Amino acid sequence: LHKGTMPDLWQDAMDHAVTLARKAGEIVKDALQNDLKIMCKSSSVDLVTKTDQNVEQLIITSVNEKFPEHSFIGEESVAAGEPCVLTENPTWIVDPVDGTTNFVHGYPFVAISIGFAVNKMLEFGVVYSCIEDKMYTAQKGKGAFCNGQPVQVSDQKEINQSIIATEFGSNRDPDAVDKIFSSMRKILCLPVHGIRGVGSAAINMCLVASGCVEAYYEIGIHCWDVAAAAVIVSEAGGVLMDVEGGPMDLMSRRVLAANNNIIGERIVKEIEVFSAVRDDAPSLR
Amino acid sequence: LHKGTMPDLWQDAMDHAVTLARKAGEIVKDALQNDLKIMCKSSSVDLVTKTDQNVEQLIITSVNEKFPEHSFIGEESVAAGEPCVLTENPTWIVDPVDGTTNFVHGYPFVAISIGFAVNKMLEFGVVYSCIEDKMYTAQKGKGAFCNGQPVQVSDQKEINQSIIATEFGSNRDPDAVDKIFSSMRKILCLPVHGIRGVGSAAINMCLVASGCVEAYYEIGIHCWDVAAAAVIVSEAGGVLMDVEGGPMDLMSRRVLAANNNIIGERIVKEIEVFSAVRDDAPSLR
Repeated sequence: LHKGTMPDLWQDAMDHAVTLARKAGEIVKDALQNDLKIMCKSSSVDLVTKTDQNVEQLIITSVNEKFPEHSFIGEESVAAGEPCVLTENPTWIVDPVDGTTNFVHGYPFVAISIGFAVNKMLEFGVVYSCIEDKMYTAQKGKGAFCNGQPVQVSDQKEINQSIIATEFGSNRDPDAVDKIFSSMRKILCLPVHGIRGVGSAAINMCLVASGCVEAYYEIGIHCWDVAAAAVIVSEAGGVLMDVEGGPMDLMSRRVLAANNNIIGERIVKEIEVFSAVRDDAPSLR
Repeated sequence: LHKGTMPDLWQDAMDHAVTLARKAGEIVKDALQNDLKIMCKSSSVDLVTKTDQNVEQLIITSVNEKFPEHSFIGEESVAAGEPCVLTENPTWIVDPVDGTTNFVHGYPFVAISIGFAVNKMLEFGVVYSCIEDKMYTAQKGKGAFCNGQPVQVSDQKEINQSIIATEFGSNRDPDAVDKIFSSMRKILCLPVHGIRGVGSAAINMCLVASGCVEAYYEIGIHCWDVAAAAVIVSEAGGVLMDVEGGPMDLMSRRVLAANNNIIGERIVKEIEVFSAVRDDAPSLR
């Protein structure tokens, strides 16, 4: 065995991810509590971009120092032209600020999301919902936790007793909006107890893991939004699939997380899909 | 002046409302943390009903003891056949558990809402978001607070830089659902930054008061969902109106709370109304 596949090395990496997530959370909270309060709302978009970049740089620098052989996929790096391709190499998949619209408005769901894959398989995930101060962690085969307490998905099997999470998203293309609304309406009228969405993919998935909602789906998310939370859902006893059924593809921009296959597959039947350019599509730059 | 109109008596009543809201919050949290965990999800509807009734009884008993001349409008009392009519008499308007669907699922937004009106004018409001442990309070002319810290609405005047809160609600009548979706779609595509909703009218309004969202509207809510939060929004610098514009009517089952008139009136233009039986309609029982 290559040394890199030994479990205790991933434990090291995971512990480091938790430390980094907490540090990053402090930066995000500080930006929210200080900078956001004193600026006009119209310049808050610049603040989120700055905070996003600061946090991602902090994580990259620290990971490079501690694990120089590891690879990195991050929202801001990809935005800056870095490739977004998952290799066999140990890879950190990071969203420095998940829920940027929430951040801009001080809406209290903002997360730091740190996933980790080896041989293209997710090994651990850390999602820190920093305003709530909830640290979600999971390592393959070792269960899922929120602030150290085990979390578990809901045992609900009846779709009409379920809450489903999803988002309107930021896509305003009329065809996509049509399909987003049509899917939501069909799901609402199954009927379900309700539809919710906190504005962060990572936190929505952690709510599936915690049993607060039965499922979450969305088209248009990126691998860094869901990589970490996918481990948390699966270690909490939940399932991950594609929005049309079948296995989840991390690079497909599509995700469905559910408490079980019954609920997941019932939701699949109602989702109207629309196209989204894959995260690993050849760049047009 | 009748003694009952002296401000310091309302201060007494308000202090008592805060004490009651906190006590009620303990009951709700206890039910969530203990009872809900050990029962199957399918019986959780009975738990919320029981908790609703317990909390309302606690508040009624305590108010009757301390303020025997005051009137009371509460969700469970009205459900049990009590009239829902606002008179000139000092009146407590109470929702013991706002966000019952959330409660059933352990979704972390559940509030105790205690409003107080004299001469049909709202005098103070207390909303305790008990899982978040946020105590929102406001008294006419004295500002709005969350856990003792002043809160203020957003200063945003641009609709396309705004987040709007609303809910799908529990109405599954096709005409109502048509209009709910149609309004949401028009608002989303104004465009706005996003649409959110935490599943509790009172907390959605407190998010307007805190500046996290610019506006919240809904048709189908009841007076006890919004009475308390209306004072909080207005003392935080916000405005309340009917979903078709003009003054809010507490008994109309309709509410629009906004950070200012510009945003509020822009939203009014997009809302498609549907009918809802007034809270003070003659009972058919």
